[in-house]
Amino acid sequence: MNNTRPLIVISNDDGVSANGIKTLIDVAKNHADIVAVAPDTERSGQAHSVTVINPLKARLISDTEGVKIYSCNGTPVDSVKLGIKIFSDRTPDLVLSGINHGSNVGNNVFYSGTMGIAIEALFEGVPSIGFSLCNHSADADFSETVPFIDSIIKNVLSADKLYKQFCLNVNFPYKPEGGIKGMKVCSMSEGIWKESYEERIIPTTKKPYYWITGVYEDHEPLPDTEQYAINNGYGSIMPISIDLTHRAVKGEVAELLKAECL
Amino acid sequence: MNNTRPLIVISNDDGVSANGIKTLIDVAKNHADIVAVAPDTERSGQAHSVTVINPLKARLISDTEGVKIYSCNGTPVDSVKLGIKIFSDRTPDLVLSGINHGSNVGNNVFYSGTMGIAIEALFEGVPSIGFSLCNHSADADFSETVPFIDSIIKNVLSADKLYKQFCLNVNFPYKPEGGIKGMKVCSMSEGIWKESYEERIIPTTKKPYYWITGVYEDHEPLPDTEQYAINNGYGSIMPISIDLTHRAVKGEVAELLKAECL
Repeated sequence: MNNTRPLIVISNDDGVSANGIKTLIDVAKNHADIVAVAPDTERSGQAHSVTVINPLKARLISDTEGVKIYSCNGTPVDSVKLGIKIFSDRTPDLVLSGINHGSNVGNNVFYSGTMGIAIEALFEGVPSIGFSLCNHSADADFSETVPFIDSIIKNVLSADKLYKQFCLNVNFPYKPEGGIKGMKVCSMSEGIWKESYEERIIPTTKKPYYWITGVYEDHEPLPDTEQYAINNGYGSIMPISIDLTHRAVKGEVAELLKAECL
Repeated sequence: MNNTRPLIVISNDDGVSANGIKTLIDVAKNHADIVAVAPDTERSGQAHSVTVINPLKARLISDTEGVKIYSCNGTPVDSVKLGIKIFSDRTPDLVLSGINHGSNVGNNVFYSGTMGIAIEALFEGVPSIGFSLCNHSADADFSETVPFIDSIIKNVLSADKLYKQFCLNVNFPYKPEGGIKGMKVCSMSEGIWKESYEERIIPTTKKPYYWITGVYEDHEPLPDTEQYAINNGYGSIMPISIDLTHRAVKGEVAELLKAECL
């Protein structure tokens, strides 16, 4: 590798052969050397899981023109950790995740391996962006997102602020009327998975087992939120805070539990 | 079950047979009927993972005096979802998680199944508390935490604010000099896992595999943080915000990416 070029580490949770990560690598390789490490199979819903009681294995599956692609047997977060700590020959300038097949607005961040990757990168001191397209299909068309991702990468890499610490959750609407209009910096949407379990019976033992089922329900989106931007044909950019303290309720909780507040 | 009593759902990530969950059930059963659902084996580091491409199975392993205990083949978050949606005969009043064998201060929340359970409960509209003891040992002595947990449960269940939405991360120091002095409501600690991978070679194929290794390093704790409370012999109570928007940097990010701010 020519180590005067920036280095971008890329991962995802849909697996190394998903179209989303292929699109992301294709855009990013115009701007930087690439180390991509992704799970060998789909790993949706794995959040920030880390493999701690089993070892990890990884395999180089492609190495051409500054783009190295590895598959690994771990989680999305394991993948980005291997990418940064084992397979990068220098400190990465940026970590990118996705493009996820499906929306990651609102509390999907908590379940999302795509956003687990981005948050983990920030813990490692590398600025990061998780990209998602609001379409779950394996053969979704990512082409409309390309110029926006291209521009985001260019702006981030060229800015003096390159080493600034941030983690961004970026979501694109799927083929809105008239095309994606632009990008908006937003607050987190409020929405919730309305889930239940479908009970079935094991033929041999006659005992029950359960499949999760559910749909994501957006609340009526407030005009500063991700879903509002998306409903209006814009991509959403949500900067993530890794300080989870709910400062507004500290006093109330102290009163309820008869404890002192620091 | 006598459904005039409060109902508490309990889960953990150390598995259904861990001493921590046994202690928590023993304390909580004095205050409420209990539905405990926990993974059949240790599931550390599984964060907010949800099983979406495989079915779940669960087994009633004990049912005495208002305490039902189930083991399941899923993640910590799967367990609490089954507890709330399948095995509770009414809406639970409270979800408790733990007692975790090991600290969950600072960014451990992101990796922690214990706190994944608590956050998931809040998504389901049930107030929740994750408890952790700052000792990883399987045979750690939980006895010092009992009166504090007892008092927290009593205060929460007896208050008018019972249905208030909150999710608390509670950590106890392990046998501090002179005993645990009390509880403090805190902000999140800053600390980081300093990790690397140990590379070993597979005897048959001669290919490498990787074990994660690491230690958690606290930054010098600020005087309003969890670690400060713990270092001074107090238990820490940190209310968690599920709105992850980093509002302070929205303007900066908009400028960097040449986007508008909503």
